Amino acid sequence: MKLKKAVITAAAPAQRLLPLQRLVDRDGEEKTALRIVIEEVISAGVEEIAIIVCPGDGDAYREAAGELAARLVFVEQHQPRGYGDALHRAADFVGRESFVHLVGDHLYVSTIAGKRCAQQLVEAAQAHDCCVSAVQATRENMLPYYGVVGGRRVERNNHLYEIERIIEKPTPTEAEQSLIVPGLRAGHYLCLFGMHVLTPTVIDLLGEAAANSADKGNIQLSPALAALAQRERHLALQVSGKRYNIGVKYGILTAQFALALAGNDRSEVLAELVTLLAG
Amino acid sequence: MKLKKAVITAAAPAQRLLPLQRLVDRDGEEKTALRIVIEEVISAGVEEIAIIVCPGDGDAYREAAGELAARLVFVEQHQPRGYGDALHRAADFVGRESFVHLVGDHLYVSTIAGKRCAQQLVEAAQAHDCCVSAVQATRENMLPYYGVVGGRRVERNNHLYEIERIIEKPTPTEAEQSLIVPGLRAGHYLCLFGMHVLTPTVIDLLGEAAANSADKGNIQLSPALAALAQRERHLALQVSGKRYNIGVKYGILTAQFALALAGNDRSEVLAELVTLLAG
Repeated sequence: MKLKKAVITAAAPAQRLLPLQRLVDRDGEEKTALRIVIEEVISAGVEEIAIIVCPGDGDAYREAAGELAARLVFVEQHQPRGYGDALHRAADFVGRESFVHLVGDHLYVSTIAGKRCAQQLVEAAQAHDCCVSAVQATRENMLPYYGVVGGRRVERNNHLYEIERIIEKPTPTEAEQSLIVPGLRAGHYLCLFGMHVLTPTVIDLLGEAAANSADKGNIQLSPALAALAQRERHLALQVSGKRYNIGVKYGILTAQFALALAGNDRSEVLAELVTLLAG
Repeated sequence: MKLKKAVITAAAPAQRLLPLQRLVDRDGEEKTALRIVIEEVISAGVEEIAIIVCPGDGDAYREAAGELAARLVFVEQHQPRGYGDALHRAADFVGRESFVHLVGDHLYVSTIAGKRCAQQLVEAAQAHDCCVSAVQATRENMLPYYGVVGGRRVERNNHLYEIERIIEKPTPTEAEQSLIVPGLRAGHYLCLFGMHVLTPTVIDLLGEAAANSADKGNIQLSPALAALAQRERHLALQVSGKRYNIGVKYGILTAQFALALAGNDRSEVLAELVTLLAG
């Protein structure tokens, strides 16, 4: 499986400033959130990146990407018709190739030294030559925030699952009835991580969803991913690492603190925080 | 002293994204850094605000100010000729009125409940009817980063000083020879806080500096403030609170943590950080 393209969705109108947020990466360098996300996919071998944006945001994001801007293509989503529609905007860019997809409002901290989360995901997709969605075992109180995967563990692999179904923001009852995955800690579910390797079939499925959406309502991604798992092999990989949603309240603080704790500046940042606490 | 106008400088080319950074204020609301700074001056009674910006940044900053944008005037600094030149761009806006001046890359956390740092400063300026610059007692190892004030304490006031001289980034020897202020802790100096009440005389002095700068070099603010103290009464107020420079490495993390510790969400944020540390 050739994986040279990535699509990053960053078109939610309320989240337009997120790619411009400045953080210090775990290597100790100051960067925008957008640049950290771009470096994540480049680390996995991606060469060209489409960013789905609100109309007019391309210039600011290009500047936020610094010298990596040469690898970027900007595609505008003119109507806020949902996450699935945003990804579907990348149809021409993707063509008939498989691609990596990341959301633009999450940052990732791998727990494997020298191997970022996107690298783990791409390796799994290439080893099994199929779609793979990254997941994280997540406590059931967080179900209202995520797409949730049900399935069974791939034999002789503790971190890989055959996806049988995907439900967006399931109720606790739905989750108990159809999303319990044997082998996870009690009360935990496999929630999507905001990072996927997908075949162009998902673009076809999103196109069908758009054509069938007579009322021009929102197109979500999870139903297309659920349909994808019926058409093609679709695995879920429990990535060794954590995702941080920088779009929630204190999301940037938490992500920055996690990056610093995992990085070169751990002692310096802890000392600074203790000084503030002693204040 | 009538104080209805404020000037915020935010035109340093390397710092253009700072006003767009998203933080949670101590009231628990998500805001841009620009909006927090604007609320700081509005809390002190200011009605109209000029923001000095790099060419082209007005629109993004206007959006970042939300519904407070109606109070803003944007003035572009076309050549990056220094902090003093940036303030001088506000000459037409200021006219012959006194004004509040804040830098756009600092956030302030007051330690007086219900009274922000800018309010403390404006009250002192109105009580004494003269220029007042906010200062903070700062350890000598930080002298390379600040303008430093020398002077003597105003009688019967523990927090107010008559300014006799101001030196930008003094050497330790310069500081020991002319900036020691009786009554401060050993090894501490009065460093500028990024917040001033100024008369239009400072605009005149900056104009003179620009006229005399034959080589079109940078115009700094500290020499004009030093000259101001020779022409008019100019006090320094030790504000009850702290300044956080969000332009330095980990500056946003530190400012956000300080805001959270001083605010409604203290327990929630501490719990989140402990979870990450245990992580």
